[in-house]
Amino acid sequence: MRTTIKDIAKYTGFSITTISLVLNGKAHKIPKATEEAILQAAKELNYRPNQLAVGLVKKQTKTLGLILSDIRNSFFANMAKSIEDECRRNGWNLILCNTNDLHEREMKYLQMLADKGVDGVLICMARENDSEKVEEMVALMDSLNIPFVLVDRFYPEVKGCSVIVDHDEGGYLAARHLLELGHTRIGCVGGPKDLADSNRRTQGYIRALMEKGVEFDPSLIFYGDYDLSSGVRGAEYLLKKDVTAIFAYNDMSAYGVFHYLKQQGISVPEDISLIGYDDIFFSEILSVPLTSIHQPVEEMGTEAVQQMIRIIRQKQKQDTKKNIMFQPYLVVRQSTAAPAGVMHK
Amino acid sequence: MRTTIKDIAKYTGFSITTISLVLNGKAHKIPKATEEAILQAAKELNYRPNQLAVGLVKKQTKTLGLILSDIRNSFFANMAKSIEDECRRNGWNLILCNTNDLHEREMKYLQMLADKGVDGVLICMARENDSEKVEEMVALMDSLNIPFVLVDRFYPEVKGCSVIVDHDEGGYLAARHLLELGHTRIGCVGGPKDLADSNRRTQGYIRALMEKGVEFDPSLIFYGDYDLSSGVRGAEYLLKKDVTAIFAYNDMSAYGVFHYLKQQGISVPEDISLIGYDDIFFSEILSVPLTSIHQPVEEMGTEAVQQMIRIIRQKQKQDTKKNIMFQPYLVVRQSTAAPAGVMHK
Repeated sequence: MRTTIKDIAKYTGFSITTISLVLNGKAHKIPKATEEAILQAAKELNYRPNQLAVGLVKKQTKTLGLILSDIRNSFFANMAKSIEDECRRNGWNLILCNTNDLHEREMKYLQMLADKGVDGVLICMARENDSEKVEEMVALMDSLNIPFVLVDRFYPEVKGCSVIVDHDEGGYLAARHLLELGHTRIGCVGGPKDLADSNRRTQGYIRALMEKGVEFDPSLIFYGDYDLSSGVRGAEYLLKKDVTAIFAYNDMSAYGVFHYLKQQGISVPEDISLIGYDDIFFSEILSVPLTSIHQPVEEMGTEAVQQMIRIIRQKQKQDTKKNIMFQPYLVVRQSTAAPAGVMHK
Repeated sequence: MRTTIKDIAKYTGFSITTISLVLNGKAHKIPKATEEAILQAAKELNYRPNQLAVGLVKKQTKTLGLILSDIRNSFFANMAKSIEDECRRNGWNLILCNTNDLHEREMKYLQMLADKGVDGVLICMARENDSEKVEEMVALMDSLNIPFVLVDRFYPEVKGCSVIVDHDEGGYLAARHLLELGHTRIGCVGGPKDLADSNRRTQGYIRALMEKGVEFDPSLIFYGDYDLSSGVRGAEYLLKKDVTAIFAYNDMSAYGVFHYLKQQGISVPEDISLIGYDDIFFSEILSVPLTSIHQPVEEMGTEAVQQMIRIIRQKQKQDTKKNIMFQPYLVVRQSTAAPAGVMHK
């Protein structure tokens, strides 16, 4: 059984009050010998304070919540690992919550985490959220008085701290790379139509096209769901549009594109160039290693925890808006090349 | 701010004692109208009991700990997802702990989780553990009085409940498949030399060899670390041994084998057959989809949580030993074939 103050009382013969004073560092009027005997007994019996009680008094549990869509997605697994590592280094624990991108589940988790007295929540918002749902979520966090940091997905209208990647730049880098190779018909397998981080990639893509004087053709954007099957469906759609290159907005959908092209006997990069986004580990070991836009996911996780801890320590009001924006970069591997018949410029 | 009983007192004008009686369902002597007014106010102010206080009284926090090596490994990510899903369905939360396979970290986490009052811990033991370290860990859990369930990795000498896969059968199925294709020189890329679950696979492999009258050559076992680089090193070693097939003890090391063979211009399965173990998602989408031994990881996660909850509810003493053993099965894809020059029997 866990050692309690009662056990120490039984063991030493001193009263619970005396022991409590000693263990809480308030033994000013207690004889030195008594104090030492009690501390010695606490050590021998392996006494450790009950953190539930400590949490109630200090109003701090040293526990954070992490809400994300699905830990099986390598992007989130990598992020969760770096978040938990940083928590451990600072003596915090992390409660893991998978929403499967459902808003309702996100709301329930927030309530549950608040009930457990977590000191803060790191949130990768559910994909299902539109601005109304985000408002609902922010209102709930406000009423629960839980500090939060948004990671990865964000809504421009939410106040507080967000740790994000500059997806406009990411989209720009991907498109510019393909344009420089000589592609002009570049299809996109995007995320859901209303998702800010997907639309930012599209903005960057358009910026790169404009820079090179290539007209933007909206019919070359396929709206998917960031998963393998979106890649398959996107590739099928885009092949009919005579594209020579495909920009998938995450690596998972790039795998789907690759899979479909292979089934059709189309070679990457000889027939069609393919670029992904995320740079998750498996992209390196694919049969044709995938050119991708690297997101510094580990650094983001670490930063998010540090921001969270600072907010909790300083009891900052979250009424200012702070975006911490990490820059993505291009990793060129073997899935991109000049279009057939075009020499590298 | 979070609503407290004081806020309800201020709002309704009733005393804290009265409100506390009503909210704790002990309002026998309190007028019906008062009770209703208080319940109404609690609802309006969105009052929810502080679970830290509830936990102290009930001695239950409805929180479990999950200790594993590294959530970035897809096998553990899949397991964590199913564990957390089952926790949520039952109204529990899950604290995630990554040990990076370090025993010392495992011990610290256990202490930390006990201090936070978790009701139980699900443990995938650190790879670093030898039997002495396992004993140390079990002794700590005993002294902390935390119920636990071992998942995936286990030591035969530990009492209590383990949810595991029959790795002897897994090893047997992998070797039998290769033998039936006509291979007799089958190299293995194993796990660490002292690890029970790696040695079980080897036992099954030997059993299949014996069944087919093929002599066991210990020099065909390469001891690795279940990671990509072990696969690379293992392949390099085994190529010198003239093997025609390689059995990698997990999919990650199979990817390493595949990578190395490709670099050397060796084709899978034309020149060398390759079989993995785990059947993680990416194995399906490799350029040569990987034949693998499927571990029912999701079912294992669900079972582990159900066992844990039962142990907690029934306050079972963990002095009996119970192994819940899931059977793995073979998934044949394209990385295995008859050896060159041998017809399929």
